[in-house]
Amino acid sequence: MDLFLPLFVILIVARLLGEISLRFRQPQLLGEIGAGVLIGLVAPFVAPSVPGLADIGRSVPIQLVAEFGIFFLILLVGIEMQPGEMRRASRSSLFVAIGGVVVPLAAGLFLGYAFLPDTPAQPAQALFIGVALSITAVAVAGRVLNDFGLLHHPIGRTVIAAAVFDDILGLVLLAVLTAVIATGAIPPIADLVWLQIKVGLFFAITVGGSRFLYPWAMRVLGAVHSRAAGFTALLVVAFAFAVLAELMGMHFIMGAFVAGLFFEKRLVGAAEYKDIRDGMGVFTHGLLAPVFFAGIGLQIDLSALWNVPGFLVVLIAAAIIGKLVGCGVAARWSGMDLRDSAAVGIGMSGRGAVEIVVSSIALQAGLFAQGQDSPYVAHLFSALVLTAVVTTVATPLMLRLVVPGQRTPPPDADAP
Amino acid sequence: MDLFLPLFVILIVARLLGEISLRFRQPQLLGEIGAGVLIGLVAPFVAPSVPGLADIGRSVPIQLVAEFGIFFLILLVGIEMQPGEMRRASRSSLFVAIGGVVVPLAAGLFLGYAFLPDTPAQPAQALFIGVALSITAVAVAGRVLNDFGLLHHPIGRTVIAAAVFDDILGLVLLAVLTAVIATGAIPPIADLVWLQIKVGLFFAITVGGSRFLYPWAMRVLGAVHSRAAGFTALLVVAFAFAVLAELMGMHFIMGAFVAGLFFEKRLVGAAEYKDIRDGMGVFTHGLLAPVFFAGIGLQIDLSALWNVPGFLVVLIAAAIIGKLVGCGVAARWSGMDLRDSAAVGIGMSGRGAVEIVVSSIALQAGLFAQGQDSPYVAHLFSALVLTAVVTTVATPLMLRLVVPGQRTPPPDADAP
Repeated sequence: MDLFLPLFVILIVARLLGEISLRFRQPQLLGEIGAGVLIGLVAPFVAPSVPGLADIGRSVPIQLVAEFGIFFLILLVGIEMQPGEMRRASRSSLFVAIGGVVVPLAAGLFLGYAFLPDTPAQPAQALFIGVALSITAVAVAGRVLNDFGLLHHPIGRTVIAAAVFDDILGLVLLAVLTAVIATGAIPPIADLVWLQIKVGLFFAITVGGSRFLYPWAMRVLGAVHSRAAGFTALLVVAFAFAVLAELMGMHFIMGAFVAGLFFEKRLVGAAEYKDIRDGMGVFTHGLLAPVFFAGIGLQIDLSALWNVPGFLVVLIAAAIIGKLVGCGVAARWSGMDLRDSAAVGIGMSGRGAVEIVVSSIALQAGLFAQGQDSPYVAHLFSALVLTAVVTTVATPLMLRLVVPGQRTPPPDADAP
Repeated sequence: MDLFLPLFVILIVARLLGEISLRFRQPQLLGEIGAGVLIGLVAPFVAPSVPGLADIGRSVPIQLVAEFGIFFLILLVGIEMQPGEMRRASRSSLFVAIGGVVVPLAAGLFLGYAFLPDTPAQPAQALFIGVALSITAVAVAGRVLNDFGLLHHPIGRTVIAAAVFDDILGLVLLAVLTAVIATGAIPPIADLVWLQIKVGLFFAITVGGSRFLYPWAMRVLGAVHSRAAGFTALLVVAFAFAVLAELMGMHFIMGAFVAGLFFEKRLVGAAEYKDIRDGMGVFTHGLLAPVFFAGIGLQIDLSALWNVPGFLVVLIAAAIIGKLVGCGVAARWSGMDLRDSAAVGIGMSGRGAVEIVVSSIALQAGLFAQGQDSPYVAHLFSALVLTAVVTTVATPLMLRLVVPGQRTPPPDADAP
C-alpha cells in the first residue's frame, strides 16, 4: 500500500501551514484545510507518475486515516465535555441555546427554499443548511473566550453551556437528517416516527448503558494486568456505540460523542482520565486531525468564491446574524446588559470543525447529489465549508469590537 | 467502510484473551494471536452474511490498522532503546551478540538446506530461517529479566546490550533479504554489491540525518505554537525514513526503527520524550498492537502442528539450543560462571513479536511462494510463528530452572 509517502507529504504541509495560520492569529484548521487545497492543486502536476501522490485525493489509506480523524476528534470533544457542565447550566444558557438553534435553523431553511431548486431533495437540503448554521463549536468558543479572559465571567459560562447544548442539538438533527438522506427525500410520517423511535432507542441504550458500563469497566480494570486497558475499554464502548448508531440509521460520530461524553473524570479516576485524554490528544492533534482537515481541503473546491459569491455572502451573514440575534436577544431577555448580550451572540458564532465534519458527512451521504444543475447546490458544500472557516476566523475579530482592551494571544482553535 | 464492527470484535476478543494469557503467566501476544485464530474460525460461521465480519481476514481497514500496528510497535522499540545503551555495551555483550547471531543463523541455514526443496528460492528461504532464528526480542528479555530481579545484574546488562545488537543485525539481515526476495532469488554479485551500497546509503542518510534533524527540529519546535508538534516531528522523520527504506529496497520498519532509535531523551528533553512515548504507548498497546497480533492469528493456520510436527520440534530446538550455545559459550569465554552463562543463553531465547513481524514481512514479500509442493515450505510461516510463540513462552519457564528462588510475577511481554 502506498501509505507513507502521501502521509508524509500531507502531514508536513498541513502542520506547516497550520503553524503559519497560528502566527497570523488565525485558527490552525484554516492552514490545514489550505494545505489540502494546495496539495490537491500541485501534486498531480509535480508528481504525475508517483503512486500515492498523483491520485492523492482518492487514496484509500488517507481516507481511512481521515475517518479515524473524525472519530477521534468527536470522541475527544465528548471526553473534554463533562455531563455535569450541562446539568449545572443556568436557565439563561438554555434560552441562549434555544435561540441559537431556532433562529439560524429558520434562516437556513429560508435560504434553502429561496435559493435551491425544487427537487425531491430540496426539503432535506434546506433543513441541512439550517442544521449547519445552528452549530456552535464548543472548542472554538472556549479557546476564544479564554484568550479574552472571559471564560469564568458570566459571558463565558453562558456561552460554553449553551454551545454544548447546541452541539448536541446539532448532532441530533444531523442524526435525523442522515436517516432522512438514506431514504432519498423526506419520508412518510410513519417512517419519521420509526426514525424518532430509533433515535430515542439509541440514546436510551447508550446513555443508560454508559452510566452502567463505565463504572463496571473501571471496577474490572482495577484488577487487570494488561497495559492501556482503560483506553481499550473506552474504544470498545465507542466502537460499539458507533456500530449501534449506524444500525439505528445515524452517523457513527454520534456514538463516538456519547461514548466520550459519559467517560467522566469522576467515574474513571483523574489519573486514568488524564492519561487517556492526553494520549489521544497527542495522536489526534499530531496525526489524525491534520490529515482529516487536509483531506477536507483535498475534497473541496473553492468554486463558491467565484461562482456563487452572492449566495456565499448571504450564507455567512445568516450564520453570524442568526447567532447574534438568536443568542443575543435570549441573553438580553434573561437579564444581561446590551454589550454582554452582544458578546454572547458573537461568542456563539464560530462553527469550527463541527460544521465541516457535519457537512462532509452530508456530502458523503449524497445530500448534494440532486439538483446539481443549480449553481447553489453544485457549490453548496464549498459554501458551507467556507462559512465554517469565515465564522471561526471572524469570532475573535468581532469580539474585540465589543470587548475592548483585553489581551488576545493567537487563537489556537484547531479543535472542533 | 465496514470499519467499526470488525474493529470492535477484534479489539474486545484480543484484549480479553491477552488478559487471560497474563493470568496464566504467559505473554499477552499469545492470547492476542489466539484471538485472531478463534475469530478466523468462528466469524464465517456465526455471521456469514454480516459485511465486515464474514470476510474479516481480508478486511482492508483491518489490514491498514495492522500495518500501522507494525510501524508504531517498531517505532516504540526504537524509542525505548537508547543509542547510548549500545555504546556502553561491554566487550562480553558484543561476543554474546555475535555468538547469538552466528550459531542460530548457521543452524537455520542448515535446516533450510536439509528440509526445503531445491528451488531457486531455496537459498533465500534457508537464509530467512537463519535470520528468524537469530532474533532476540529486547522487550521480552527486558521484561523477563526484570521479573527475575536480574536487570541490573551482569546477566541482565549483558543480555540487554546483546539483544539490542542482535535485533539490529536481524533487521539489517531482513533488509538485505527483502531486497533479495524482490529479485526472486539470490541475485548476481553486481546486484548484491549495489544492494549493499543502497543499505549503506540508507544508514548513512538516516543515522547522519537524525543526528542533525532532531536537535534542529527541537530548536525550531521550541518556538512553535501548534499542539503535539514534537509528535508530528517524530512522525515526519519516521515517514520520511520509511519511504527512503522502501526506495532503497528495504522494508519500511527499518526506517521506523532508526527514526525511533535516535529520538533520544537528551536531544528532545525528558518531558517531551515522556509525553510522546506515553501517548504512543496508549494508542499502540491499547489499539494498534492487539489488532496487529490478532491479524497475525487471522492469517496463520496452525497446520504446522499436525502436518510437520517433527520439523516444528527441530526448528524450536534449533532456536533454543542455537541461542543457548551461541550466547552461553560466548558468555563463558568472556569470564562468566557456568550458571550465569546458561542464564544469558536462555535470556536471549525469546523471539517475541520481532520474529513474527519479520516472518509476516517475508510472507507478504512472497518468500514462501516457491516450493509449496513441499509440506515444509507450505507450513514454514506457520512453523516460524509457532517458534516465536513457544520460545517466548519458554524463556521464563527455562530461566526458573537455572535461577531458582526468584519471585516471578506474570510476564507482561506483549511488546516486541
